[in-house]
Formats: sequence, structure tokens, C-alpha cells
Amino acid sequence: MNRFIPVNEPLLNGNEKKYLNECIDTGWISSEGRFIKKLEEDFSTYCHQKYGITVANGSVALDVAVRALKEKHNWQDNDEIIVPTFTLISSAQSVIYNKLKPIFVDCESVTWNMDTSKIEPAITTRTKAIMVVHIYGLPTDMQPIFDLAKKYDLKIIEDSAQAHGQTYFNKKCGGMGDISTFSFYANKHIAAGEGGMILTSDKDLFEKCNYFKNLCFQPEQRYVHNDLGWNFRMSNIQAAVGVAQFERLEQSIKIKKQMGKKYRELLSQIPAQLPMPKMDYAENHYWVFGIVLNDDVKFNAQVAREKLQQNGVGTRPFFYPMHQQPVLIRLKLSDKEYRPVSERLYDRGFYIPSGLGLDDEQIEKVVKEIRRLF
Amino acid sequence: MNRFIPVNEPLLNGNEKKYLNECIDTGWISSEGRFIKKLEEDFSTYCHQKYGITVANGSVALDVAVRALKEKHNWQDNDEIIVPTFTLISSAQSVIYNKLKPIFVDCESVTWNMDTSKIEPAITTRTKAIMVVHIYGLPTDMQPIFDLAKKYDLKIIEDSAQAHGQTYFNKKCGGMGDISTFSFYANKHIAAGEGGMILTSDKDLFEKCNYFKNLCFQPEQRYVHNDLGWNFRMSNIQAAVGVAQFERLEQSIKIKKQMGKKYRELLSQIPAQLPMPKMDYAENHYWVFGIVLNDDVKFNAQVAREKLQQNGVGTRPFFYPMHQQPVLIRLKLSDKEYRPVSERLYDRGFYIPSGLGLDDEQIEKVVKEIRRLF
Repeated sequence: MNRFIPVNEPLLNGNEKKYLNECIDTGWISSEGRFIKKLEEDFSTYCHQKYGITVANGSVALDVAVRALKEKHNWQDNDEIIVPTFTLISSAQSVIYNKLKPIFVDCESVTWNMDTSKIEPAITTRTKAIMVVHIYGLPTDMQPIFDLAKKYDLKIIEDSAQAHGQTYFNKKCGGMGDISTFSFYANKHIAAGEGGMILTSDKDLFEKCNYFKNLCFQPEQRYVHNDLGWNFRMSNIQAAVGVAQFERLEQSIKIKKQMGKKYRELLSQIPAQLPMPKMDYAENHYWVFGIVLNDDVKFNAQVAREKLQQNGVGTRPFFYPMHQQPVLIRLKLSDKEYRPVSERLYDRGFYIPSGLGLDDEQIEKVVKEIRRLF
Repeated sequence: MNRFIPVNEPLLNGNEKKYLNECIDTGWISSEGRFIKKLEEDFSTYCHQKYGITVANGSVALDVAVRALKEKHNWQDNDEIIVPTFTLISSAQSVIYNKLKPIFVDCESVTWNMDTSKIEPAITTRTKAIMVVHIYGLPTDMQPIFDLAKKYDLKIIEDSAQAHGQTYFNKKCGGMGDISTFSFYANKHIAAGEGGMILTSDKDLFEKCNYFKNLCFQPEQRYVHNDLGWNFRMSNIQAAVGVAQFERLEQSIKIKKQMGKKYRELLSQIPAQLPMPKMDYAENHYWVFGIVLNDDVKFNAQVAREKLQQNGVGTRPFFYPMHQQPVLIRLKLSDKEYRPVSERLYDRGFYIPSGLGLDDEQIEKVVKEIRRLF
């Protein structure tokens, strides 16, 4: 009755067990196997990209994707990639690990996505790509990015780890980048525990990704290496869960939308900003349900989170901006310039239990505890 | 009847399905969950180390392990690590990715393990550690390495990816390194599809490994990063299979030994070197069953492998020596000096179907096709 409500619980009531059992019965547990192939083919088709490459998780998907682009287009060390400052460290470090330089752009206050009006001033002669990260279930406004990419001949890296099945107008998220990435972490719409995916319609990028993720083994001379790669393979076991989860993606999105609607209704009176329900280009999928405390609230997100934790409600902080990260300042990869929107979001924002396994009773308990804060 | 015999098929007839179903029923599919904890605790105890850290695979286990040692002991860039030249690229690249320099030592011709008599001449004032890789199921002779480590104050990194449950005298493989690593790839004695493990008895190394493998998240301020890490987590789903496989490890070793004994008997007349059945310190576990063609055989391993492939028998080449790798020569990380034993092994050696799923009929077919080569 008073059980702690975790910030996420997945919903695994489809074919997950059936497919896992098939892996065991057939002996196909490694990175070869029919679920790997099926997930790559079905998910790339769904997102309108030609090729899918499964990988171990969404972070390494970015590492591989950025490297493939860098090698294909002969980008030089210290060439620049535009990256939103309000995101997970994985976005920035995929750029850094590939010896490129991230240039951080603030987000805007309505959707929490990258502020597209601030991209052009950040472009230099060394800029090679814009990394887009769709935040918390609402897409980034892509048209200005398409325009800038065309104007300055930039590639688009589309991190869709938080936007499975989401669309920008009629375009699927993950279908708009020269290369796009997904995570299948346990809190995602497609939850395989771990696991990730790269999508592209460029055959050369596809082949490069498969080569880098599999230790740069060669088909003919397996153990003779012309390059250093990584073992970033996903197993057929993870893919089995991924395929079962993909089958129910539309249903999962529906559940998330209902959850978001319910939270919005029940929390409409609190002195805080809630997620935008829709933009002209998309309805919110509420991957997670964020709350940003108004400036006149006397406590910040951290205090609110501690109280909720004590009262049995799990939460997570909003992203800590990349330009403020101690490690990036130490590595001289941040200019430390003031980026007001993301800095405020970290101070005032957090997200509340948003998993697919959340039931109405839990939602009501969460709402009750949040109201009690004020 | 004439079905192709793959080089490996796992055996998954224990509690694999039961434990996988438990993951789905309980919703614990991510890197937290009871099988992760159980595998870490049980396997470290079994190998007589204090701590276990699950990771995504055996390659990244090495990346994390080497980094943890480097940071703990303040090794400087370009400090040197002794590495056997006859091994998988993962051993060398974990050193390189951590900005250390691998110094390659030839193997010896009886066990195919690193020739311990050639280590001391390779030691310089910059040498910090010896990486041991137990090859194909027979351990490296550890006593000379213990002696050198003591004499020169070197750390031991023990790559036991091919030696689950093996012992050196009465010491478990994986229990002898300052830090040790394992792979749970589908062809291993413990086959989880993908997955890996780091073992250590040093609390500081344990904490560092857990920190690096989980994106350097901090418990208190999750998204504030003082360091750049990686997402190299293993999922509870992979661990569920790992736990089931670990339960039957002794039985798997018994099957492998029987397979090795049978191959040795049936292939005793061919003009080739077979694996050593035992040394004074260990019996061979035959992780894979290698064959090295005698010098007077008119064809080399590649020709033999092509013929076997045509006749329905899968094989794999022996390791291509690290000092000859095109990528390492290009990166000026190899001296290209002649290392006769490993160079000959690559030319003359390959391994034949050795999986736990191999039955007697398949073994006889393999033997028949190998005999036909001569």
C-alpha cells in the first residue's frame, strides 16, 4: 500500500518470454541470430531509414555513429559539432572521444529542446554537424536545422534515445538524421534492459558502423586488423526483448500519453511549469514527465526531490548542463559562458515516476505528495 | 545428416529459461537486479577474489580494468605494459586506448601461452604491469610472472576470458591478477551471449571500475560529471543466463575435457601438433581444440580451413600476432621484430568445432574430414 514508487518500471507483458525462450531453445544467444536481424530490419523500416545496426546501448551508438561520419567525411581532429547543452553526457563524450570539439547551445524554455535560434551564431568554418537530441518525449523543431544544414553543408546526427515512435510533422524521429541513434535502456518505450540502435540510409555509414562495433574484424582475415574498433555488439537475447517491445510500441505510446494527460490535469494548480502537451509539429509522448518549479517557489528541485523521496516517490534531476560539467571545464572543452535556460532548468526541474508500469493509484499517490510540497 | 558443423554451439539446458522468465515477471531487466548481484558475488567468491564487476563483454572489461589500474597507481601516458603477441586485439587495444604502450612478447610452442623466459628482457623503467592471457584453455605458467612482478614491482592483469574454472596448481584462473577479466561470449564455458566480468580484491579498483562502467554517474549528484566514463553495463537479462551457465560450469568443463580427449585420440596420427593434454600445473580444458600443421605438410592453415569449410566443418584461424597487425604498425606501436613462434602458429594453426553442444557423431565427422586433408 505504501510501497515506494520508483521513477520507472517497464511493462513486459507481450511476447518477451516467448522470444527469450526461443533464443535458449535454438542456441542463438550471441550477436548473430534472428531477433538481431529482425530488430534491425523492422525498426529501420519503421523509421524510414534503409539500414539498422544494433549496438550494446545508446551511449556507444553515438560513439560509433560520430566515428563513422568522421571517417567517411574526413573530418579533422578539433572540427566542431553543435551539441545541445541540456542533455546526457553521452552526447558530448561521443564527440570528445572522436577527438572532435562540442560547441554547446542553450535550450529554450518551452520544450526544453535546443534553441534553434542560437545555432547559427555558433557555426564556424570548422563546424561539421549538428547533433539533435529530442528531449523527454517532445521533438526538436527540425525545420530550422534542416535549413542550416543545407546552408552550411552540415550533417545531422539525430539522438532519438528519448523519442521512439515520435514524429516531427509526418517524419519519424530517427528518420531525419544522416545518422540517428536510439537506446533500449529499461526506461525507454522499447525497453530491452540494455541495447541500442543506429539508423542510416547511407550504405557506407552502415558498413562502417558494423565494422567498428565488431572489433574491426574482417570477413576474409578475421584477426588481421587494419583499424582499432570496439566490441559494442548487442546480443540476440537483448534483441528478443527489443522485438517484443517494438511490437507493442504504439500501445506503449498510448499509455504514456494517457499518463501525461492525467498528470497534467491533476497537477494543473501547482506553481510549476509542466511539459507542453503539443506543438504544431508533434504531440508530447511524455517519455518522462518533467516539472519545473516557478521562480517564486521558495525551494529548489533538489529540496523537492528529497522530500518526495522521504515520502515514497522516486524522482530524477533534470540534466546538468554540459557547459557547466566539471570534467569538461577541466578538459578546456567548455567556454563556461552563461546559458540561462538550461542552468535554470537544472536548478528548478526534475521528473517524476513515468514508467509504463505505473498504475492510476500510483499516479494519484505521486500527485498527492507533489501537492503537499507547496 | 550432412548439416554444417559450426565452430561453436552453446549448451543451454539448465535454468536459463527459468531465470529469464523471472526477469520478465519481476520487471528487473536493467543493470540492477538480482542476477547481476548474484553473478558478481558468486563468481568472485568462486575465483577467490573479493569483488566482481559485471560489464558488457570481455573486451570492455579490459578497457575498464586497465584504466582503473592506471588511475589508482598514477601511471603516466606511454608507460609500458607487457602483453602476449599471440592474443585477441582486445588485449592490446585496452592498453592503447588508455594511452599506455603495449610491449609484445612471443609465445612458446608447447602451450601457445606467453613465453615467460622472454618477459624479463622486455622490462624497462617504464614497465608497470604484465598482462597475462590464458590461451585456448591451458593456463600461462604463472610462477615466473609472480617472481617478476615482485622483483620489478609490477601489477598483474589476468585475462581469463578463455579459462573459466581453470586452475594453476590450486589457484583459480582469474584469482591471480591484481585485476582479472572474463568474457561470457556465446562460445565461452559460461555463455551469456555477450557479457563480461572484472574481478579484484582491491576495494579502490572495485569502486573505480563500477564508476567508469556506469558513465561516471555520482550517487549524490547523478548528472554532474567529474570524469568521462562509458556505458559498459551488463543487463540483468544477460546475467540471468550467466548465472544458469555458472551453475553448470563443472559439468561443462567435464564435457570439454572429454571432447579434447576424444579429438586427441582420433587425431593422434595426423601430421600436426595437438593441444598439450596437461602440464604439471594444470590439465587442459580445451576451451577450443587447436591444430598446428607440421612444417612438412605442403599446405598451410588457410588452405586446410577452406577445404574443411567446403566439406561442412567450421573452423577459426589462430590469432594473428599483435606485432604484425597493420593497424599497430601504422600507429607505430609495433617494433615489427621477428617473433618466430607466434608467426608460425598463425601460418600453421587453426581450431576446429569445440562447442559444448557438439555431439559424438559431429566429432567423428570433423575427424573424418580432417584426416581426408592429408
